[in-house]
Amino acid sequence: MFGALYTSQDVVSSAFAAALLATFSTAVLCFLGLSWTSEKWRIPLAMVGVAALASALHYAGAAALWMGGAGSSGGIRLSAWLTVQPLQVAAVYFYVRALGPASVGIFWRMSAAALLMVFSRYLGDAGFFNPTLGALLSIAFWLYILGEMYFGGMTEVIRRESRAVRLGYFWIRLILTIGWAIYPILHFVDVVIGTGQAAGVVALYTLSDFINLITPSLIVLAVAGQERY
Amino acid sequence: MFGALYTSQDVVSSAFAAALLATFSTAVLCFLGLSWTSEKWRIPLAMVGVAALASALHYAGAAALWMGGAGSSGGIRLSAWLTVQPLQVAAVYFYVRALGPASVGIFWRMSAAALLMVFSRYLGDAGFFNPTLGALLSIAFWLYILGEMYFGGMTEVIRRESRAVRLGYFWIRLILTIGWAIYPILHFVDVVIGTGQAAGVVALYTLSDFINLITPSLIVLAVAGQERY
Amino acid sequence: MFGALYTSQDVVSSAFAAALLATFSTAVLCFLGLSWTSEKWRIPLAMVGVAALASALHYAGAAALWMGGAGSSGGIRLSAWLTVQPLQVAAVYFYVRALGPASVGIFWRMSAAALLMVFSRYLGDAGFFNPTLGALLSIAFWLYILGEMYFGGMTEVIRRESRAVRLGYFWIRLILTIGWAIYPILHFVDVVIGTGQAAGVVALYTLSDFINLITPSLIVLAVAGQERY
Amino acid sequence: MFGALYTSQDVVSSAFAAALLATFSTAVLCFLGLSWTSEKWRIPLAMVGVAALASALHYAGAAALWMGGAGSSGGIRLSAWLTVQPLQVAAVYFYVRALGPASVGIFWRMSAAALLMVFSRYLGDAGFFNPTLGALLSIAFWLYILGEMYFGGMTEVIRRESRAVRLGYFWIRLILTIGWAIYPILHFVDVVIGTGQAAGVVALYTLSDFINLITPSLIVLAVAGQERY
Amino acid sequence: MFGALYTSQDVVSSAFAAALLATFSTAVLCFLGLSWTSEKWRIPLAMVGVAALASALHYAGAAALWMGGAGSSGGIRLSAWLTVQPLQVAAVYFYVRALGPASVGIFWRMSAAALLMVFSRYLGDAGFFNPTLGALLSIAFWLYILGEMYFGGMTEVIRRESRAVRLGYFWIRLILTIGWAIYPILHFVDVVIGTGQAAGVVALYTLSDFINLITPSLIVLAVAGQERY
Repeated sequence: MFGALYTSQDVVSSAFAAALLATFSTAVLCFLGLSWTSEKWRIPLAMVGVAALASALHYAGAAALWMGGAGSSGGIRLSAWLTVQPLQVAAVYFYVRALGPASVGIFWRMSAAALLMVFSRYLGDAGFFNPTLGALLSIAFWLYILGEMYFGGMTEVIRRESRAVRLGYFWIRLILTIGWAIYPILHFVDVVIGTGQAAGVVALYTLSDFINLITPSLIVLAVAGQERY
Repeated sequence: MFGALYTSQDVVSSAFAAALLATFSTAVLCFLGLSWTSEKWRIPLAMVGVAALASALHYAGAAALWMGGAGSSGGIRLSAWLTVQPLQVAAVYFYVRALGPASVGIFWRMSAAALLMVFSRYLGDAGFFNPTLGALLSIAFWLYILGEMYFGGMTEVIRRESRAVRLGYFWIRLILTIGWAIYPILHFVDVVIGTGQAAGVVALYTLSDFINLITPSLIVLAVAGQERY
Repeated sequence: MFGALYTSQDVVSSAFAAALLATFSTAVLCFLGLSWTSEKWRIPLAMVGVAALASALHYAGAAALWMGGAGSSGGIRLSAWLTVQPLQVAAVYFYVRALGPASVGIFWRMSAAALLMVFSRYLGDAGFFNPTLGALLSIAFWLYILGEMYFGGMTEVIRRESRAVRLGYFWIRLILTIGWAIYPILHFVDVVIGTGQAAGVVALYTLSDFINLITPSLIVLAVAGQERY
Repeated sequence: MFGALYTSQDVVSSAFAAALLATFSTAVLCFLGLSWTSEKWRIPLAMVGVAALASALHYAGAAALWMGGAGSSGGIRLSAWLTVQPLQVAAVYFYVRALGPASVGIFWRMSAAALLMVFSRYLGDAGFFNPTLGALLSIAFWLYILGEMYFGGMTEVIRRESRAVRLGYFWIRLILTIGWAIYPILHFVDVVIGTGQAAGVVALYTLSDFINLITPSLIVLAVAGQERY
Repeated sequence: MFGALYTSQDVVSSAFAAALLATFSTAVLCFLGLSWTSEKWRIPLAMVGVAALASALHYAGAAALWMGGAGSSGGIRLSAWLTVQPLQVAAVYFYVRALGPASVGIFWRMSAAALLMVFSRYLGDAGFFNPTLGALLSIAFWLYILGEMYFGGMTEVIRRESRAVRLGYFWIRLILTIGWAIYPILHFVDVVIGTGQAAGVVALYTLSDFINLITPSLIVLAVAGQERY
């Protein structure tokens, strides 16, 4: 799996290896959690588990590339996000849907926005159009998703629920607000300013995933697990 | 898994990586979905899940080939389709069969047509006979499958079902009509005109799989999940 | 997974890739089928699933060898058959056993014959004794297995069962009669005549597995699935 | 998986191979154990299983590096511990939580301490600050975790339980006290004194994992299994 | 997975490939068997399944080494046995424990003896002390395990059980007596006489595993399966 140039000082290798194990472990825990949580949480829990698993596969590939001396690139990260981030956004919808009726239109709008958010960023990164335009479009779609979460129909359903559920929703939304804000910033540094995929940039992207991907998954697992006690 | 020449500008690498993760995630979601859907949907859901998994394995192999510098070829794609597309067509039959009696003859005829559709295309591509003949035979078998879906015994069963089920059938059939139409067109461009496996052609094939493979799988999962609410 | 020399014209690569995906998909379908079939079919279904999985692993290895430029050999095929074919033969016994009492002696005699059938072929192929002798011994053990299936105690049990079960037994036995007859013929062409592992021979072996391995597995799955309707 | 320079005299290869198989087997046993233990033990059992699985993945990577001739490094070990050790510490909390109410604050404090324990060690090892400072900080966080286990709220819950449960807690805590003490000592030898990743040091680290990772997992499995008899 | 120098005449490649598929298939069959056997057999069945799985992983590694041209060594075999053989011995204890009370002291003594049996052999093989001493110590621990099985408390429990259970115990014990006797003999030939890891020695070791590892696993599966009829 791992190639040849791994030393303690190579921050990216360490970050990739740590992210691979952490996302994979998160995925397995979520899947095992399906057996001890009540039935209604199965869909959001499966979705955050699959998102973590897809991310683990991506880190296995990214680590193999890096240790093979091929550096890293936006392409591989954005290819993974095309699966991971729509799954995360859809999981938020099914988190709410597990509790009460939520218009299926919210699902379609949020999923489409999440797909376009990643795809426009990719088109900019790959040179199909101006990278700054790609980043700006991506930010617009991200803000749209946040709008649905803060002011859309889902807040109605959540308001009537137990404290644990509301707290879970609050934290996931906060992570998708503050945590995801790091991506446009890093994208700006990386593509627009042009530092490229410097080791520090790659390590920061990876660190962000710890907070932005693993934490929401564990929050869903924790909220779903509450019902046992 | 991944080799050496991955940059953001390499559209094929990005497309393969994205398709690998997306099809694999689809497969895992379908398999997990077996635990929250009612028993009668298990067979079609298992089949679309296995089709997505086979496709993911194929993308892992295709990505390894591409990044190893060996380009891509029709051979590897058609080898995978030999499993994937008959499974998809058979899943449509079992989708209907889950709801009411449908003659097992439909299953045999559609599965055979799906196998021959891919196999004749392969024989043309590999030079056993004229590639144009292969493509034309393949189109004929495809049209036969469409005929069964539009005018065959399955429409009788579907007509009596709930709106969600009818909508699911409608969309899957539409994808197998319009979405699969891209394959003869690309095949024409690739083999007959002779652009070969140019990057754009490969990327378009891969993009088509997103719509033609992942969407029907998710439709089956969604229809099967309806019964919970 | 796959190496470097894959073009559409390379029949063996395509055959190996297709067989890998098809046997793997068969295995996964059989394993998922354990959840929707009645309990009594679990043992034969598990066995044909494991046989298909072992065959998939073998094709992964054989494809890696072939694409690495190492050609193919009887050794790797026979190594796999040592697991696959006794499992298939034992699955026939448990298919009958699921329906009524069948002497455990039949199981021992058939399994031993299946092991010896593959092993004597291997000893001839590897040069421990004359390859023709190996092929002849192998044929003798194969005929013994057929004898048990046509005239042994299992036919008594099967005769009293439903049409679907009898049809399943009939087809599996036919495949093990006609389908397996291709192996001595190919073995004769390959080892005795001495064409070696020519591409055509390897592709024909692989094509045979589609009929001889995948079909019986799917028959067991189909018969076991009948009970649901 | 394994590269080229494996002889019996190469202690590290043997240690890595043995640790890979032992941790992987432990993980599979714990996961299978979920099916025969009572529901309340599922969370701690899943956690120690996932910790063992993450460790197995890490050994697969470490073995590939070593046999590829790249030696070993603190980076890869600490990257794995970032997942493994917080999971182990959290499993102790859920071990107690399975039996009676334990303040969720204990969970947060212990998990944070475990994360910081590994992370500060890594920052020292990677040269972000003085390695001796990293080791000392790491020891401080470790002592804090031990404090929670010896004097915190969990001891209250454990005291009221059956002998098997108390014995299990006693042994796990003892391993986290005496067994984990080897890490600061080895870290001191390795980084501060500067023997580097000598074969003996790497082998000792690996040997420690046998006691410190596999034993607690098996203890949880054994305690959970008690309830069957 | 497999490298380059595989021909039919290369006995070791064939033996490794056959053992990999056979042990892996055994493991999968045992795991699937957990679903059709009664609850009390789960622990011994899980253990023999995990032992077979660990052995399969070891053969995957050993095959990769051999085909990469690195030969074979006692180190990799003994690293695997450190997991496999204690699991097998412990499975015998839990086989008896499934039927009636058996002192847990037997478990501890037998497991410790099995670990020391492998470990002392390794220490001799790796040159930590005289290989003959290692082999002799190993034989002593093996004889101790046999003593427990023939004259220890387990025979009391077994004597009162059904014929199938007694027969299973008899055969497993016989395999651990006669089958395992091949290891000291081969160890003597290999290390003490000094033929080294000649192809014949490696193939014989592998062949022994077919009898010593796969057969006991299948016996446990068969005995556990008896209760269905």
